[in-house]
Amino acid sequence: MSSYSSEKEQLINRLKRIEGQVRGIQRMVDEEKYCVDVLTQIAAVKGALTKVGMTILEKHTHGCVQNAVANEDGDEVINELMEVIFKFTK
Amino acid sequence: MSSYSSEKEQLINRLKRIEGQVRGIQRMVDEEKYCVDVLTQIAAVKGALTKVGMTILEKHTHGCVQNAVANEDGDEVINELMEVIFKFTK
Amino acid sequence: MSSYSSEKEQLINRLKRIEGQVRGIQRMVDEEKYCVDVLTQIAAVKGALTKVGMTILEKHTHGCVQNAVANEDGDEVINELMEVIFKFTK
Amino acid sequence: MSSYSSEKEQLINRLKRIEGQVRGIQRMVDEEKYCVDVLTQIAAVKGALTKVGMTILEKHTHGCVQNAVANEDGDEVINELMEVIFKFTK
Repeated sequence: MSSYSSEKEQLINRLKRIEGQVRGIQRMVDEEKYCVDVLTQIAAVKGALTKVGMTILEKHTHGCVQNAVANEDGDEVINELMEVIFKFTK
Repeated sequence: MSSYSSEKEQLINRLKRIEGQVRGIQRMVDEEKYCVDVLTQIAAVKGALTKVGMTILEKHTHGCVQNAVANEDGDEVINELMEVIFKFTK
Repeated sequence: MSSYSSEKEQLINRLKRIEGQVRGIQRMVDEEKYCVDVLTQIAAVKGALTKVGMTILEKHTHGCVQNAVANEDGDEVINELMEVIFKFTK
Repeated sequence: MSSYSSEKEQLINRLKRIEGQVRGIQRMVDEEKYCVDVLTQIAAVKGALTKVGMTILEKHTHGCVQNAVANEDGDEVINELMEVIFKFTK
């Protein structure tokens, strides 16, 4: 069982909405909508993905990381956590 | 005609790939894959969206912005450009 | 004369404040203040630098870029602009 | 004693270099150097600050967070950690 089990439904719904937004951007590009409107929409999707990521990150840290530390296996899991956070900060 | 006309096909293909990746993340969440793997995938999609955005931004600046300046209408279009860049930098 | 001439004083004042904040962070580290407080302070300085950068970027685009386009030298200056924006978005 | 004790010297040296870079940017602005060169320098300083932050974050998570979890005080410290990461990702 994953750390984000309790949020699964909600996460999938948010990802479905993001999928719909990406399809919407394809349509905008196909209809050659104004660049700035397309860019605003892309920024919105990136923001929505960051929020989904932050929810999973939070659940992961409270769940997996906390468990690993309790089992004296914390260092490796924390190194891994740092790497993934680094990917998110750039 | 939009500034990114010449890249339309390529942009739509990249957005279709991104749509597929978002569906892949839904599946990962549904199958309760390991948090760090889901997060890595989300970071990858964000990176791909940034690249699509940068392509459109570049075309827009060479196209619309350059035109607007030539028509002495530059200031307004540049203000708009700055706003959308600001959305991308955070 | 640079595009940001009119804002020079104000920009230097903001950069002096940022310099003071960086010295403050050195002091915090030296006194071994709580990590989260140091990190919050670092995030604040990064935010202040982004704002200084956005002011210069705006002046640059209204000034240098607009001039270059008027002198039919726009493409090169815009390529350069895109590169520097790309550095800011990551 | 802070989690980053062992890196204190090195962190202060890096922050002193950053302070010098900020002073260098003031000089560039004062001498009205070319906008793109100033912006490149600002992006470099932001990058250096992010690296200092990541070092402290890593030490903090291996140190304070791991301790807090061991003392069954993990949830609060992790909430705090998430907030500070969120400040860094935007």
